[in-house]
Amino acid sequence: MVTPLLTDLYQFTMAYAYWKAGKHLDRAVFDLYFRKSPFGGEFTIFGGLEECIRFIANFKFTEEEIKFLRSVMPTCEDGFFDYLRSIDCSDVEVYAIPEGYVVFPKVPLMRIEGPVAVVQLLETPFLSLVNYASLVTTNAARHRLVAGKSKNLLEFGLRRAQGPDGGISASRYCYMGGFDATSNVAAGRLFGIPIRGTHSHAFVSSFMGIDEITNKALTSSDGSKKCEDFVSLVQNWLIRIQESSSLHGTFGETSQSELAAFTSYALAFPNSFLALVDTYDVMRSGVPNFCAVALALNDMGYKAVGIRLDSGDLAYLSIETRKFFHAIEKEFGVVGFGKTSITASNDLNEETIDALNKQGHEVDAFGIGTNLVTCYAQAALGCVFKLVEINKQPRIKLSEDVTKVSIPCKKKCYRLYGKEGYPLVDIMTGEDEPGPKL
Amino acid sequence: MVTPLLTDLYQFTMAYAYWKAGKHLDRAVFDLYFRKSPFGGEFTIFGGLEECIRFIANFKFTEEEIKFLRSVMPTCEDGFFDYLRSIDCSDVEVYAIPEGYVVFPKVPLMRIEGPVAVVQLLETPFLSLVNYASLVTTNAARHRLVAGKSKNLLEFGLRRAQGPDGGISASRYCYMGGFDATSNVAAGRLFGIPIRGTHSHAFVSSFMGIDEITNKALTSSDGSKKCEDFVSLVQNWLIRIQESSSLHGTFGETSQSELAAFTSYALAFPNSFLALVDTYDVMRSGVPNFCAVALALNDMGYKAVGIRLDSGDLAYLSIETRKFFHAIEKEFGVVGFGKTSITASNDLNEETIDALNKQGHEVDAFGIGTNLVTCYAQAALGCVFKLVEINKQPRIKLSEDVTKVSIPCKKKCYRLYGKEGYPLVDIMTGEDEPGPKL
Repeated sequence: MVTPLLTDLYQFTMAYAYWKAGKHLDRAVFDLYFRKSPFGGEFTIFGGLEECIRFIANFKFTEEEIKFLRSVMPTCEDGFFDYLRSIDCSDVEVYAIPEGYVVFPKVPLMRIEGPVAVVQLLETPFLSLVNYASLVTTNAARHRLVAGKSKNLLEFGLRRAQGPDGGISASRYCYMGGFDATSNVAAGRLFGIPIRGTHSHAFVSSFMGIDEITNKALTSSDGSKKCEDFVSLVQNWLIRIQESSSLHGTFGETSQSELAAFTSYALAFPNSFLALVDTYDVMRSGVPNFCAVALALNDMGYKAVGIRLDSGDLAYLSIETRKFFHAIEKEFGVVGFGKTSITASNDLNEETIDALNKQGHEVDAFGIGTNLVTCYAQAALGCVFKLVEINKQPRIKLSEDVTKVSIPCKKKCYRLYGKEGYPLVDIMTGEDEPGPKL
Repeated sequence: MVTPLLTDLYQFTMAYAYWKAGKHLDRAVFDLYFRKSPFGGEFTIFGGLEECIRFIANFKFTEEEIKFLRSVMPTCEDGFFDYLRSIDCSDVEVYAIPEGYVVFPKVPLMRIEGPVAVVQLLETPFLSLVNYASLVTTNAARHRLVAGKSKNLLEFGLRRAQGPDGGISASRYCYMGGFDATSNVAAGRLFGIPIRGTHSHAFVSSFMGIDEITNKALTSSDGSKKCEDFVSLVQNWLIRIQESSSLHGTFGETSQSELAAFTSYALAFPNSFLALVDTYDVMRSGVPNFCAVALALNDMGYKAVGIRLDSGDLAYLSIETRKFFHAIEKEFGVVGFGKTSITASNDLNEETIDALNKQGHEVDAFGIGTNLVTCYAQAALGCVFKLVEINKQPRIKLSEDVTKVSIPCKKKCYRLYGKEGYPLVDIMTGEDEPGPKL
């Protein structure tokens, strides 16, 4: 998809004008940088470099592309298209901060040198590859910071991303930004990201009742025994929970449709049973149904993974669920049941996770979609690509808006570290100026 | 890129659980709809249907994909992967509102019927294809509404879009939403969208001075004469403008770097000369330089297209520029020069265009990027895909949040038109209920 035509037309009209003026080989230096960190924050994580390098490594026009360009620019001379045919990026030099580093405004992420006509052609693809990658990586890192190191962070954004590739890029760069896994199978395949997923509300509501389950047998985890009627085992556990004195009264009748769905899912995935518990009512149906299935699995040597909450007051529901899990552990002597995992989803973002932290909660994992992948809080990073030198002459772009004035000259950038090994400051100097000293 | 693996893992784990329970062929009906129109507005434009249809027409797993799925779900039985190998969408029915129609909350954009396991696999790709397409089409249509029919709208968003495909989708759907052209060459090629572009600030600042231009000859539009020194012709016009009594005093010296860039661009594209005039100073340099080149082109039978403003007070600058154009027309008797086109760009969106309209302006064309393609004002449309019937039984998803409760049953949707031919209301009925009558 990322071909030399994935660029703005003006890169080609400029290339032609450079060529006509005999300036196309002038040696130019461009800086790629941003003016302000996103999300009102003080840092950005640099993403997209690998894609840029792959792009220039393969930069070459096909005959079909040349033919199309000729149709778009019919007044241009043949010699120009011969020139386009001849170019690649072997004469382009790229200096960059390593991908995944913390970066700051105005310090170039990349310095690109080469023939002015060629480097101009790279402007749009480079910006397209770096802008969103850096934005979403930064967003993921901010979510990791607010959630804390111990939480599991799952990216669930494919369905709301800006186009299919927006979804794939999001999965890739959220993983780089500190997420643990994605729901996106294609991204998992392409980039080796761990993939997670269990079931949706539709799965729960597709079941009418427990009678639907015909294949009821389950072999135990170690293969030593077979339960011919796992459904009855689940139902017996549900009765025991309902009749327990310590749990009694917290719920009456649970949804049979939901119980059937959970039981079916457990029969399919006894090793990784995780149930979405909010299709009907979390505390009166979802959680007790989950526990009945989990206890039946426990009898067969399997350990249920946990539940997912996708609506309601996540702080309150996670705390109540945790209490219920502990009560089950105590009542039935199932060691560790109290620590069964609780995942939360439902339009989460930095702010809602921060609010949950302040309220107190018992969530172990967060599934985050829309706000993460679309960078809802700020949907674009304004990286720019500015000419700073040509034929060894410094160039500047002036503007009535002083923040848009570019910093001229070919630069060197340094990151200074203190004695303790922590970074202190980034410094830019002119290419030929002496570097900072101890 | 849009393959059957471009989906959430839980679609596959559910498919396996359905298959294990012998439910995978149950006939299910899903509705795809949204709950609220975006951007605080009252309408949405439906986009993405064609892509969905193309996706299901080609839906088939490759052996490599099956192999990957097997590695992700190692505990699943072989029979399931044989089942996956066997499926396509020949048993899936899709009913949809035509793409490009105005649509409203809760009325299904698409109704998808088929074997529950197969239709579930379509959920994520369908949402991924419809959500952003509809959002950005709607955003484009809203920009068209506020700009008015007579303005030229140009989509310039590729560099800020959410990934390369985000950029290509944006160009495609902005055109559907009422834009006239894009800067994105690849999208122009793929979808036949008109492509526009001229030059950037870097082009202007890459020139040192007028001496750089060595090839100074220009043949007239009709081929009848040749000007050997077009540069001198431009310079003479600049002196005449500077010395004119009616224009005198509006500027002193213009940037020679800019004059060289404009002259070079005009020599390359005499038929389509459009200059970016804000690299140094719009009224004191950019506009007079443009006029000198445009008048020189006029001598040679060419008509300059116009200017682009990319910073500053666009209302004020466009009005001042228009006055200058009219003064040039009057002073030098160049009929129509006053109507020379003015394009504005620089972080435009619905609100800024509305504000320009209220202030009064002389802009003929708007170039819109970041805010348009990233849908900055609301970066996601919340389309959902909900089970409403299975094996002819209606299904509902309950929620503590009443707006998230689904409307059960297989439905028919009608749009009622008044006598004057205008649509009045959309109505949903049960599939077997009688339709509305006159």
